[in-house]
Amino acid sequence: MFNNILIIGLGLIGGSILQGIIDNRLADNLYAIDFDKSVIDNAIDDKLITNGDNELLTLARTDVLKDCECIIIAVPAFAVKNILEQIKTAISHKLLPSDVIISDTASTKGNILKDAFAVFGKLPPNLVLAHPIAGAEKSGFMARNGALFKSHKLIICPHDFNHQNTVDKIATLWQALGASVDFMPADKHDEVLALTSHLPHLLSYALTFQLAKDEESLNIFRYAGGGFRDFSRISASSPIMWHDIFLANKQAVLKGLDNYQTILNQLKSAIENDNSDDLLETFEIAKNAREHFGRLLVEKEKLKNSS
Amino acid sequence: MFNNILIIGLGLIGGSILQGIIDNRLADNLYAIDFDKSVIDNAIDDKLITNGDNELLTLARTDVLKDCECIIIAVPAFAVKNILEQIKTAISHKLLPSDVIISDTASTKGNILKDAFAVFGKLPPNLVLAHPIAGAEKSGFMARNGALFKSHKLIICPHDFNHQNTVDKIATLWQALGASVDFMPADKHDEVLALTSHLPHLLSYALTFQLAKDEESLNIFRYAGGGFRDFSRISASSPIMWHDIFLANKQAVLKGLDNYQTILNQLKSAIENDNSDDLLETFEIAKNAREHFGRLLVEKEKLKNSS
Ligand SMILES: NC(=O)c1ccc[n+]([C@@H]2O[C@H](COP(=O)([O-])OP(=O)(O)OC[C@H]3O[C@@H](n4cnc5c(N)ncnc54)[C@H](O)[C@@H]3O)[C@@H](O)[C@H]2O)c1
Ligand SMILES: NC(=O)c1ccc[n+]([C@@H]2O[C@H](COP(=O)([O-])OP(=O)(O)OC[C@H]3O[C@@H](n4cnc5c(N)ncnc54)[C@H](O)[C@@H]3O)[C@@H](O)[C@H]2O)c1
Repeated sequence: MFNNILIIGLGLIGGSILQGIIDNRLADNLYAIDFDKSVIDNAIDDKLITNGDNELLTLARTDVLKDCECIIIAVPAFAVKNILEQIKTAISHKLLPSDVIISDTASTKGNILKDAFAVFGKLPPNLVLAHPIAGAEKSGFMARNGALFKSHKLIICPHDFNHQNTVDKIATLWQALGASVDFMPADKHDEVLALTSHLPHLLSYALTFQLAKDEESLNIFRYAGGGFRDFSRISASSPIMWHDIFLANKQAVLKGLDNYQTILNQLKSAIENDNSDDLLETFEIAKNAREHFGRLLVEKEKLKNSS
Repeated sequence: MFNNILIIGLGLIGGSILQGIIDNRLADNLYAIDFDKSVIDNAIDDKLITNGDNELLTLARTDVLKDCECIIIAVPAFAVKNILEQIKTAISHKLLPSDVIISDTASTKGNILKDAFAVFGKLPPNLVLAHPIAGAEKSGFMARNGALFKSHKLIICPHDFNHQNTVDKIATLWQALGASVDFMPADKHDEVLALTSHLPHLLSYALTFQLAKDEESLNIFRYAGGGFRDFSRISASSPIMWHDIFLANKQAVLKGLDNYQTILNQLKSAIENDNSDDLLETFEIAKNAREHFGRLLVEKEKLKNSS
């Protein structure tokens, strides 16, 4: 599919993309950057990559990236801007082709568009924003999984100046990794993700924090049944990554949180006032919606197992 | 263990107790009451119970309960008071022994103590409150599982007038069903459960409701990743049962909710003001607590599989 691909950030996501590309033989040569040099050394030792370094410009100066066709940036959202600056420098020094496709994996998109605009003074036609809706509580290269994206959604957020053929190439790459690709504008993406992913994490962190603060927390955990177990699982996720996401998607998260607090207050006064009808109606609507969602999940699992 | 046991309410919990007693041969004769007569008929047809009816007094008048040693009430919390009244009537008509042990399975305890006091004018020494910390999203007799309580906690809330030997008998019964028995006062029980079980359900219902209300809910569900999946699983639970629980445990739930809202507001203003330190500290504490809880769960699973 590609001759030369560079992955920047060999964590869970970058590592899984690397592994998936290898498992599916989607590129001839793979290069990688990670500021944790030991990860790069391991990847070279294990013959997973042709070459790599802890700094983009250091690697680029060895001239190995002159024919690089595609860069995938898989570092935390707040580190993307600096990477884009390094890419710009490398291009201007002809260490990278000027038409190299640049893509990312960040969980928030509005901020990446802003960063790209700030760095390049425009939105580069070959910059394709992508977000895999897949993950794990574990992070880091050792947790990589070449099948991580199989039967999961991958959202591409095309911008107004994108060349259609570069968008197509990134879509094809993700499809080859097993993902099902959808398209939506960056602002819509950020709103949807605020509700379906960012808000649940915030609510889960808050409750686990509340229990942890309790004097008898140990005692309480001992009695925590299935409710708390499932609810709190996601609060074991990476604090730094989620800190970044909440700040990167501040506006949409705060809007979702406002609406959530309104609903919570309504439930609170329904409990205070023994308003059974309101409680039952809310719970029924939620139950039906969850059952509908459950059916979607079952279909997805079937798809995954049959493919 | 017992010659004659009566179970009132053959739903998920009552049905699982029945099945567990049969599987472990813990009683000679089993009787049951459920106001859904078809459930009783099925249980008789399948030879699971010796006899049963849809009304306690109807069954008692046939004189089969004269030697009943133990009654387990497994109906929704709000229906318990009426059952206690029927038991009182049956005892006064000598249709039930005056020293029959009465136990329950309700998820809230303060309210049951209040009901018992209202009905009997005192707390009967042979009334032992118990709460199995186990369950499933499914409800009803068909969802029963004789191993449901295996390696799960069972909390007994002794009251000041309990006879120790009746408490011991109920503890022994639950241990024989595989549960690990703990003791705590009813008010402490209600506080702990408000935080570890009731609050998570309320928060989950609220978020699923919020998503269901969204115009593009279908679209949003399609992108709901693991975060929302786990978080929302419990909002498929029975609306009526949870309505009952929130009202029955109103005080403790509202107190827990108040504290939760304070934490949520702190997180909100930390996001608004880019207060990274506060966010990271909260998330770190939550992550550590969840990992600690995860280890407890793993130990529990091991125990379950080894026993
Ligand atoms: N983990 C998930 O569930 C998930 C899902 C979808 C998208 N994402 C997004 O993918 C990106 C990567 O996430 P992850 O889970 O793989 O994180 P991770 O912490 O597992 O890995 C990040 C890697 O990037 C490296 N790195 C950080 N800054 C760097 C820099 N300036 N230069 C070079 N390397 C750098 C780190 O050393 C690490 O190896 C993030 O933007 C995240 O929001 C994550
Ligand atoms: N399901 C759980 O996860 C769980 C866990 C622990 C405790 N509990 C508690 O156990 C009790 C039973 O819960 P469940 O999940 O088995 O509910 P369920 O809905 O599965 O079953 C309740 C049964 O009681 C019967 N019933 C209701 N009112 C009655 C009455 N007045 N007389 C006779 N029968 C009556 C119903 O027909 C039904 O068969 C509740 O108090 C609940 O709070 C439930």
